[in-house]
Parts: sequence; structure tokens; C-alpha cells
Amino acid sequence: MGFWGIEVKPGKPYPYHSDNVPGRLHVTQATLGLGSSSERSIVQCSIGHKGPIFLCSLLPNKNESCPLNLEFEEDDLVAFSVIGPRSVHLTGFFESHEEEGIRDDYES
Amino acid sequence: MGFWGIEVKPGKPYPYHSDNVPGRLHVTQATLGLGSSSERSIVQCSIGHKGPIFLCSLLPNKNESCPLNLEFEEDDLVAFSVIGPRSVHLTGFFESHEEEGIRDDYES
Amino acid sequence: MGFWGIEVKPGKPYPYHSDNVPGRLHVTQATLGLGSSSERSIVQCSIGHKGPIFLCSLLPNKNESCPLNLEFEEDDLVAFSVIGPRSVHLTGFFESHEEEGIRDDYES
Amino acid sequence: MGFWGIEVKPGKPYPYHSDNVPGRLHVTQATLGLGSSSERSIVQCSIGHKGPIFLCSLLPNKNESCPLNLEFEEDDLVAFSVIGPRSVHLTGFFESHEEEGIRDDYES
Amino acid sequence: MGFWGIEVKPGKPYPYHSDNVPGRLHVTQATLGLGSSSERSIVQCSIGHKGPIFLCSLLPNKNESCPLNLEFEEDDLVAFSVIGPRSVHLTGFFESHEEEGIRDDYES
Repeated sequence: MGFWGIEVKPGKPYPYHSDNVPGRLHVTQATLGLGSSSERSIVQCSIGHKGPIFLCSLLPNKNESCPLNLEFEEDDLVAFSVIGPRSVHLTGFFESHEEEGIRDDYES
Repeated sequence: MGFWGIEVKPGKPYPYHSDNVPGRLHVTQATLGLGSSSERSIVQCSIGHKGPIFLCSLLPNKNESCPLNLEFEEDDLVAFSVIGPRSVHLTGFFESHEEEGIRDDYES
Repeated sequence: MGFWGIEVKPGKPYPYHSDNVPGRLHVTQATLGLGSSSERSIVQCSIGHKGPIFLCSLLPNKNESCPLNLEFEEDDLVAFSVIGPRSVHLTGFFESHEEEGIRDDYES
Repeated sequence: MGFWGIEVKPGKPYPYHSDNVPGRLHVTQATLGLGSSSERSIVQCSIGHKGPIFLCSLLPNKNESCPLNLEFEEDDLVAFSVIGPRSVHLTGFFESHEEEGIRDDYES
Repeated sequence: MGFWGIEVKPGKPYPYHSDNVPGRLHVTQATLGLGSSSERSIVQCSIGHKGPIFLCSLLPNKNESCPLNLEFEEDDLVAFSVIGPRSVHLTGFFESHEEEGIRDDYES
């Protein structure tokens, strides 16, 4: 299914759900959104009832992009959120299990 | 089919189409083009009618290259564009489904 | 099984064990925790009785995130620890051998 | 066949050819060579008769290494070159199609 | 077999040999060792009788970690060495061909 991207805004946790399409989400990049604040923005991830874990820290005018390599399954209850003044764009790609199935057809 | 590369210029969105070759485009790097401006250049991606999402932010004299890991299918209606004064070179590689088929022949 | 993440605090080595689920842990990112110190925090890893090896070095206000690409099997006796004043969040994903098995069912 | 590495010197384009071994070259890193100039060195790649595309930009004393993720097939007519005062070392690995064949033997 | 790590000290080239275990070594990260010098440390790699190629350049207090993506086979005659005042820790993982064999058993 190709490209996936969201903008996570400060104070607005972004729950991930795969719209009932079984598959695997690969999150591969974070980039700082527009704004004038020079304070860091940290992206964190919460799974179920566990406390949040930091995924990356972006520093305006120093490091505004960060490669990631994370995978989520459709039954993970995930929420992304931002600590800091500026939004963060997360990008990656989604691989549906159906696609894997199609590939398997080629292989067998 | 190997290497893929384009230069995206400010103000000129670059639509991606796979020239009717079924396959998957891997975009793996962004590098700032030549120029004297010291302002950031942001690469963004639009899919269909959705708003653009930032892929990376390049800072002259600080971070002029950024690794990416994005995949696009031939039926994604994608356009890359740049916010900022300098162009950005995107590179990666294209894997045709035919190649996958050839590999499958080896495997079966 | 998807996402994996821990916070490793200074002075508190974090032993990794896979809770008896056979599989492979992929550690793909390290991010500096909150704090005011500007000294570096180094993440290191000890396996069995061997001396620790540095995995990455994070510099406050300069490089607060670092991509990693490490794999651990369930029978590795691993402990992560931090040298420095601030904690480090490690993230990645866990792939159970059962999942591989399921994939194999699709393939055969 | 494992490790691959070259040094590309300013003013001396480096044509890549696979010495008639069918396979795929993975270029995964660029590192600035020795020298005293503090000006950037840009690595670019030309394929056939198309204009060159920038692969990365290295900044002395700031960012002297850059991860890449590029793949070239043996029938790509590729030349690497450097814009700037200092050489750049490119590294990666070569996977011959014969190796893939050997692996297939294991699999079938 | 999981995690692999070594510390390469200045002036002491570190020959890699796989202890007669057939497999593939993935080197995925370099991190600067402890020390007070602020000069760069460069990691280089020699294969057989060829001249050394730079793998990465680490800058104290600026970029002390660097992701790599290199693969070595057990019959590569490799030596890692450091140019500069401080040691460098290299990490990654080793995949034995036996493991691939085990995986193949699952698949067939």
C-alpha cells in the first residue's frame, strides 16, 4: 500500500490504527514541523497501558530530521505524541499481509 | 533496474510515475543542491488529495544530507516538492516486480 | 509482536531477557532522556562475562538521538547500561520465531 | 563476495563496473578523505547519459560521514565523482547472483 | 548468534576472523571510546593486500556515533584500524550459515 505519513501536533496524541487492514506499519523518519521556537521536540510512543518511551529528539536549527526503524502490527494499541512546542511529521510505509500473500503466490 | 535519482527544484513539484513499469521505488537519501542561501529546505510529499507531509529538513552548512527509507508502489499518485530556497536531490533505487519474478524462478 | 522499548537509567544496568518467547530483538534507536546536564551519555552492552562495548554516544543539545541496528537472540545474556548523567530510551521491535513460523505456513 | 570500497578523488570520476561478475552492489557509506580544506565535498553519480545527481554532501569538522543505501546492477553504467577539494571514500558490499544461487540451493 | 562488538585501539589493527564459524558479519555502528582529545578518529578497513578504505570519521563533542551497514564473509581477510587518538567501538551482529540452514528447515 506504500507511503504512510502523519503530523503529530503538541498536546494531541495520535492513536494509530490500521483501519482494519491487517499488516505491518514501518515508521522510518521524523521531521520537525514549521514554527519559530528553538526548543527541542521529543516524539514518544505509548503502547497499551505502559508508560511512554521516547522515539527521537529533534533540535531546531541543528537536527530537524531523524531516521527511525520501527514496526507496528495492526493489533498494537499505539499512540504517538510530542513533548515540545512544534509538531513532528512521521513518515514510513505500510505493508499489508495481503501483499505478502500475493508475493507468496509468486513464490509457490 | 537499479539506481534512481531526481532533482526537485523549489516551486516545481515533481510528480512520480513509474513509466508503466510495475514495481517499487525505494527513496533512500536527500541531499541539498548548490546555492548560497543558508535557509533550510524541506522536502515534502503529497499523495492523492491528502495534504503534504514533511519527509526531511536540510540545513545548509550543518546537515546537508539525510538518509530516508520510503517505499512507493506504481499506483501511488505521489508528488515531491521543496519548501525553501535550494533544490534537493533525491536518490534511491527501483525494484521492478519482474525482477522479483526472476528471483522467484531461481527459488522454485 | 511489534514495538519494544525501555528506559535505561544511569547506574541501573538493564538485563534483557525475552520472557521465554523465542525470537529476535531488533534494537533500532537510542534517545536521550530528560534532564539538565549537558554531559554526554554513552549506552553500552555487556554479553555474558565479556567487557562492555559502547553502542552509541548521545550529546545534549547536539545529537540527542542515534539510529542503531542490533539484533539479539533469546539466549544472549545481555545487559544494557548507561555511562553519564541522563537516562537513555532504547526502542526497536521483537520478532518471535512463531511469527516466522506463521509466515512459513503462508509460503509453503 | 563481501566488502567493497573505493576512494573517489576530486576531478577523477570513478566508473563502476562489476568485472563481469553478475550481481548487485550496495553502497552504504561515504566518508571524507584526509586534507586541510574546510569546504564541503559533494559525491555525485552519473548513469548513462543523464546529468549527475548528488548522493551526499560532507562537511569538514561537522559531518564527515554519511550513511547511504543505494543499489546498482552490473549493467548500470555508473560513474561516481566528487565536487570539492577532498576525496571521498565509498564503502559497501557486493552480492553476486551466484551467491543468491547458492542460497537457493539451501532453500530448495 | 546475535551481538558482535570489539574495541579498536589506535595503533593496534584488529584482524577479523570468524573463528571458523561460516557466516556473515554485519557491522552496523561505530562509537568513539573514552578520552580527552578533541581530534577526529577515523576507522579504516583493509582487505587482503589492498590499501585501506575509510569507513567513518568520528568527531569528539560533535558526532561521536555513526551508523554503518557493512557485511563481511568468513573468508574475507579483514583488518580494522583507527587513525587518531581515541579508540573506536564497533558493533553489529553475526549470522551463521547454520542459522540460515535452520531457517531453511522451517521453510521447506
